[in-house]
Amino acid sequence: MAELQARLAVLNADYARCIDDDRLEEWPGFFLERCLYKITTADNVAKGYEAGLVYADSRAMLKDRVSALREANVYERQRYRHIVGLPAVRDGGAVETPFLVVRIMRDGKMDLFATGRYLDRISDLNGSLKFEERIVVCDSSRFDTLLAIPL
Amino acid sequence: MAELQARLAVLNADYARCIDDDRLEEWPGFFLERCLYKITTADNVAKGYEAGLVYADSRAMLKDRVSALREANVYERQRYRHIVGLPAVRDGGAVETPFLVVRIMRDGKMDLFATGRYLDRISDLNGSLKFEERIVVCDSSRFDTLLAIPL
Amino acid sequence: MAELQARLAVLNADYARCIDDDRLEEWPGFFLERCLYKITTADNVAKGYEAGLVYADSRAMLKDRVSALREANVYERQRYRHIVGLPAVRDGGAVETPFLVVRIMRDGKMDLFATGRYLDRISDLNGSLKFEERIVVCDSSRFDTLLAIPL
Repeated sequence: MAELQARLAVLNADYARCIDDDRLEEWPGFFLERCLYKITTADNVAKGYEAGLVYADSRAMLKDRVSALREANVYERQRYRHIVGLPAVRDGGAVETPFLVVRIMRDGKMDLFATGRYLDRISDLNGSLKFEERIVVCDSSRFDTLLAIPL
Repeated sequence: MAELQARLAVLNADYARCIDDDRLEEWPGFFLERCLYKITTADNVAKGYEAGLVYADSRAMLKDRVSALREANVYERQRYRHIVGLPAVRDGGAVETPFLVVRIMRDGKMDLFATGRYLDRISDLNGSLKFEERIVVCDSSRFDTLLAIPL
Repeated sequence: MAELQARLAVLNADYARCIDDDRLEEWPGFFLERCLYKITTADNVAKGYEAGLVYADSRAMLKDRVSALREANVYERQRYRHIVGLPAVRDGGAVETPFLVVRIMRDGKMDLFATGRYLDRISDLNGSLKFEERIVVCDSSRFDTLLAIPL
């Protein structure tokens, strides 16, 4: 268990660095071919709403999302910095990990962009951990910009 | 030592999740029956002041605190997100752990609520780690609201 | 590898605590006698600029810096709180670690002071890890005050 937790911590650190380094083309590689990626809010989860602000159920959809981002976001480039807590492995194999994301605007202004928790199902694919499911549950229901980048 | 540190990291992650998930009724269970829980500030510690903003010396007092919170806080519900650093075990067995708490208001507004460090004394009770003492030393001396929730 | 990563995590936690506890006189002790300490920005790194906002290439220079800080900063004392992520060991031995720093002003006001990543080269000196090189790459290029304290 301790070893799995250590591997999960490394997975999360790698995932965060991939986004924060703007290597978005590598981001779909963290998921299985058939997967679920969803961004939702704590309020929506509490109300039992299934729909997400962002939804993808295959790696191909994640790739499309990155392509769309690259085409749209040519003139404004923001940075993000993820700080990720310790993953907790729950009964039944679900994994929960808290996160905080700071956004750094082009002009240097920083703000708290999002906090929340990742709810994951993870597979070991030939020794490499992949997300079968990553549900990003944001604490806040207010988003002041389009959720452009992955969380 | 490394194994103890890993157990302490898990304890802190569980503690944070208990609060952030609003499972406050489970929070006193992290402490021994006879314990010390105190919220104070770095300034007060530097001046040698013993009194805390919040003070409890038994699990029963912690339970009372949660009951009071539940009665008072019916109409406004805020969320919190703890991000906790690595615990350091000091000579003599005291444990120190840095933390940051973001508060998410009902309308979605987020702010930095508190930063500081936990100063703990921890007992192993039949294989389960419990707080004998948790002193929450906040970096800032300014609190813009009543310290409603546990830190 | 897992053991090294655990030691690096402890090193980073100790380093952060040294600064956040205002034990700056101990800070140069984290570095080798001949070392490189530099604070720069992600933009400058992307443009290939070598110069840093802060630059020191020996432990003696780091000590001078602390002495200057102590003489200059008598009337205003701010606190800092570092939250440090998991270190990643890259091919070739470089280590990368994300960080976030909150600044707490004398009057209690808190703000996000800096986020970024540490790019390190680390030596094992008689069983103790020391920084041969620590390059602090800040995400934002805007600094609203002189970078007084070490990051």
